[in-house]
Amino acid sequence: MAGNPERRAALVDAGIAVLAREGARGLTFRAVDAEAGVPTGTASNYFTGRDDLLRQIDARLHIRLAPDPEVVEELLLGARDRALVTAFMRDILDRAVRDRAGYLALLEMRLEATRRPELRASFTASVRGDLEQGMQFHREAGLPGDDQTVTVLYLAMLGLILEHLTLPGVLDGALDGVNVPEDLVERIVTTVVPAK
Amino acid sequence: MAGNPERRAALVDAGIAVLAREGARGLTFRAVDAEAGVPTGTASNYFTGRDDLLRQIDARLHIRLAPDPEVVEELLLGARDRALVTAFMRDILDRAVRDRAGYLALLEMRLEATRRPELRASFTASVRGDLEQGMQFHREAGLPGDDQTVTVLYLAMLGLILEHLTLPGVLDGALDGVNVPEDLVERIVTTVVPAK
Repeated sequence: MAGNPERRAALVDAGIAVLAREGARGLTFRAVDAEAGVPTGTASNYFTGRDDLLRQIDARLHIRLAPDPEVVEELLLGARDRALVTAFMRDILDRAVRDRAGYLALLEMRLEATRRPELRASFTASVRGDLEQGMQFHREAGLPGDDQTVTVLYLAMLGLILEHLTLPGVLDGALDGVNVPEDLVERIVTTVVPAK
Repeated sequence: MAGNPERRAALVDAGIAVLAREGARGLTFRAVDAEAGVPTGTASNYFTGRDDLLRQIDARLHIRLAPDPEVVEELLLGARDRALVTAFMRDILDRAVRDRAGYLALLEMRLEATRRPELRASFTASVRGDLEQGMQFHREAGLPGDDQTVTVLYLAMLGLILEHLTLPGVLDGALDGVNVPEDLVERIVTTVVPAK
């Protein structure tokens, strides 16, 4: 395997762009080489195969979509109430909207996981890890609600991001006076998270 | 356009199977013909183009994934409480699990909608129609909660179905003593829907 880490990162990012734009079936080494602007055959020196490329895309998206530690630190200066939960949920949504291609690539990976058991296993472990980390963070930060609250909030946010990135017009105007997505995040938290 | 309605339905169902198995990029007239076991060139006599095929797939999935009127009628004999909401949500989940290929095809269509404005417009109208119908049903049946409740419930169920169909291991065992997906539906309703 070739070892230039910057080139590897550029190839993985090119894979994410191809996934989002063309769908999982368009993700070939040839398409990744073309997207990255490198000679055909380059990607095959960096990845043992398509499963390896998908695993590295998953790892890279984990970093691209991760919260900014400074943002988290600043938010944690506030009171541990529903408004703070709303701010954290808005930050999750903002990151998905800002890195739209990255999040769409994750959705393509979910569908590809239904076809590839190896990808399903590794991707399940990383998403489950995120959920458990979310529960632990919520508990340790002393935010209102318990593991069940976090799970339901996670599912509603997953649904919101899926809807907003793929069919934004569905939610727009569905509730009177609720701007989508920003106000809707607050409504989700008010509905799911207990007041104290 | 050729007019044999049974053959048209068989071609649309073949398109759904191809979408679920191969992804949106695999959906070609040639693949649909092969899946339906008809001579190459048949699909092109039934659909004006790929957008027309996708629109007919959307319309067909609406029927395939629709509730059974007898089930709805029987459920409506019960008290208008959270348990009844849970029963309706379980029915939605059951239909998605039973017609897994149909629901995965819908998810592929969402991603394809990010690439095709015409599909996005027609698909948005049909999903929005479902959401508004859900709100109306909830109000007229006198179920607990309001439009906001229905919207948050809809998003949490969307997230649950996405997670359960693509990465079922994520939620499995995440909450102590909660069987996924059946018990989790009840937990979602308890969290989102007011008691009375």
